[in-house]
Amino acid sequence: MKKTYGQNAIVGQSGGPTAAINASLAGVISAWLERKNSILYGMANGITGIINEKLYNLNKIFLGKNDDLNCLKFTPAAALGSCRIKLKDFNKDPVLYENIFSVFEKYSIGYFFYIGGNDSMDTVAKLSHYADINNIDIKFVGIPKTVDNDLCCTDSTPGFGSAAKYIAAVCAEIRRDTAVYTQKSVTVIEIMGRDAGWLTASSVLANTDFSEGPDLIYLPEVPFSFDKCFSDIENAWKKHNDVLIAISEGIKYSDGSYVSADSTKTDNFGHAMLCGAANSFKEPIKERFGCKFRAIEINTVQRSAGHLLSLTDINTSFNIGSFGVSEALSGKTAIMVAITRISDDPYTIKFESFDINSIANNVKCVPKEFISQDENYITDAGIKYLRPLIMGQCDPIYLDGIPMHFILPKI
Amino acid sequence: MKKTYGQNAIVGQSGGPTAAINASLAGVISAWLERKNSILYGMANGITGIINEKLYNLNKIFLGKNDDLNCLKFTPAAALGSCRIKLKDFNKDPVLYENIFSVFEKYSIGYFFYIGGNDSMDTVAKLSHYADINNIDIKFVGIPKTVDNDLCCTDSTPGFGSAAKYIAAVCAEIRRDTAVYTQKSVTVIEIMGRDAGWLTASSVLANTDFSEGPDLIYLPEVPFSFDKCFSDIENAWKKHNDVLIAISEGIKYSDGSYVSADSTKTDNFGHAMLCGAANSFKEPIKERFGCKFRAIEINTVQRSAGHLLSLTDINTSFNIGSFGVSEALSGKTAIMVAITRISDDPYTIKFESFDINSIANNVKCVPKEFISQDENYITDAGIKYLRPLIMGQCDPIYLDGIPMHFILPKI
Repeated sequence: MKKTYGQNAIVGQSGGPTAAINASLAGVISAWLERKNSILYGMANGITGIINEKLYNLNKIFLGKNDDLNCLKFTPAAALGSCRIKLKDFNKDPVLYENIFSVFEKYSIGYFFYIGGNDSMDTVAKLSHYADINNIDIKFVGIPKTVDNDLCCTDSTPGFGSAAKYIAAVCAEIRRDTAVYTQKSVTVIEIMGRDAGWLTASSVLANTDFSEGPDLIYLPEVPFSFDKCFSDIENAWKKHNDVLIAISEGIKYSDGSYVSADSTKTDNFGHAMLCGAANSFKEPIKERFGCKFRAIEINTVQRSAGHLLSLTDINTSFNIGSFGVSEALSGKTAIMVAITRISDDPYTIKFESFDINSIANNVKCVPKEFISQDENYITDAGIKYLRPLIMGQCDPIYLDGIPMHFILPKI
Repeated sequence: MKKTYGQNAIVGQSGGPTAAINASLAGVISAWLERKNSILYGMANGITGIINEKLYNLNKIFLGKNDDLNCLKFTPAAALGSCRIKLKDFNKDPVLYENIFSVFEKYSIGYFFYIGGNDSMDTVAKLSHYADINNIDIKFVGIPKTVDNDLCCTDSTPGFGSAAKYIAAVCAEIRRDTAVYTQKSVTVIEIMGRDAGWLTASSVLANTDFSEGPDLIYLPEVPFSFDKCFSDIENAWKKHNDVLIAISEGIKYSDGSYVSADSTKTDNFGHAMLCGAANSFKEPIKERFGCKFRAIEINTVQRSAGHLLSLTDINTSFNIGSFGVSEALSGKTAIMVAITRISDDPYTIKFESFDINSIANNVKCVPKEFISQDENYITDAGIKYLRPLIMGQCDPIYLDGIPMHFILPKI
């Protein structure tokens, strides 16, 4: 017989911000508030909110407040706060796990929802494993999010579509901006993506019958070479003088070293810190061609552009949050909810659940069939996959000239 | 008796792109197409289009094509192309002026419209002066545009409001993005503005009752000191851990040297080339506080963000273009049309004309009463001036998930 702490639930957000992670949170809240006599808590700053017992009572904040919930849906980044913690195995730090589960017991938690990326799914896997071997009945559900679109088992990740839409729109705008002058120029646009080139690939969506985007697209999935790049640029100049190149921050030479200048530093997970990949084109381009050059880093706004959301992405993000609640209530645990695509056109999807252990720590890269034969562009198959994810606009509420944000009260 | 070449008109765009310069072009075209039996030509790439005789027949392109004209209105950057040329005085290069006026004669030009900033108004001044002393009857009208908002005689410049709206929106989004983590951090947002801090000042508009923006705002109008900045940061940390600083690319030390690292290079006009002002905070902040630091450069998208336009700015830009046509037709020449504000709330304006010679080459900076006493923020008076300029949203036409652009056929 399993131990049961109660019927309350707790939800957290973890990892890097996205423009849609709050839509998933709103989906969880919306589904939970339909229940009676149970509380949904929110962890302040992911799992650290449990460790430090900093919890929001989300029923109190959102019950009967549909306008606030709607505003939350369109607010970028994690309203509950985030953290970047990878839990140690429980046999290496049993006190930590005892602490976490004592908080679960204190707040009568029966359901745990964690919205995040790879590292967050690892947390869900570890906690559910601990509960399993200690015979504790809590349903653990991971809800995917990441602008990087690099999670396995899901057709796309909530948050990716909105980032892709922003990138496509601004790449078309940067093309308008570079096209005004006549001299030969090279503009390099640096886009997020360490190992997976999904965001950079989405720059191809700037090319339509009614707008123009990059001439060349270099992904981390393909070894980069300046010699090849120079020859690609010379070909692109035959078409027009303002050559536009989209690159992933994580492009690497064939020996595996980053093109980015600052590849020596590492973050808390031991990943190499990347910055300045676009800037690292400056000297080689100047030296080879002596032409006008500009490096443009599409900064963190690409993941937090609440002012330009994909309706498809926001609706999917909201609905998958609600689906996570229904899966937990139906008794499932140690799962990540995921998107399965049924058709591209019309774009139709269904939600499914996968064993959390099949997901954590694997990275899904851009497949070969999405990369052109000369390895500098995206194929029609790639466009067919990407385009539906950016379709539709949201109407955030504007106040005083800018989109309103929902900000949780301090605790 | 003055020489008259004819009743046709010519319009050009010059200087850096803005999100509203095509709205002014659309305003000129719209007003001109109401006339019969005269052609409106468009210069390809500003004054160089005349020198090289590369001209669009805008009647052919836009007559009866209201959808295209509407799409042009929302398309960022200069659809006709731009140039960065400062004309020599006519006594230094008389052949150039003879060449230009021979093209005017060939195309029966009676009206000249030039949409641009300071350097463009200088071109209008020189050409109208040459026409005057050579007794040639062409009406020369300058239509202001610049994201920098640094032109004299006009309450604001077309293009500024849309750039300010984008900056305010993304500064609020960057605040959401930085607020998700709990550790002490400094994020420096670099915004365009060499001598005038108008764009950086508009970051204050991210602070509303429903959103949060920068804690500190440093303009080029105020001498910068890291000692003062460090003390400002320490004060800001008392409020929250994620300190957000907005700076102009052109902030200078009290000795007049740029904080930006690359202050040694110059552009074609002899202006110092600025880049990396935000990056130049990295070492001093790391050394002093050892905290998390991020530099964010709001790149060229700030001037070309057609996906986030200020309705006030776009309507004003369109209408001032049309006003320029009516002023020319009423016989005025050697003028710049300008915006005069009648009231802040409700925001009401009228258009007027000013002698072009009173405008060219003067820079309007942010006045002292808009800068807080401790010189690190914007006053209520500044907000009262800025806020109306970003109000209202446009509805660009979306196709394939991104805003459509109108692209002129190649000539």
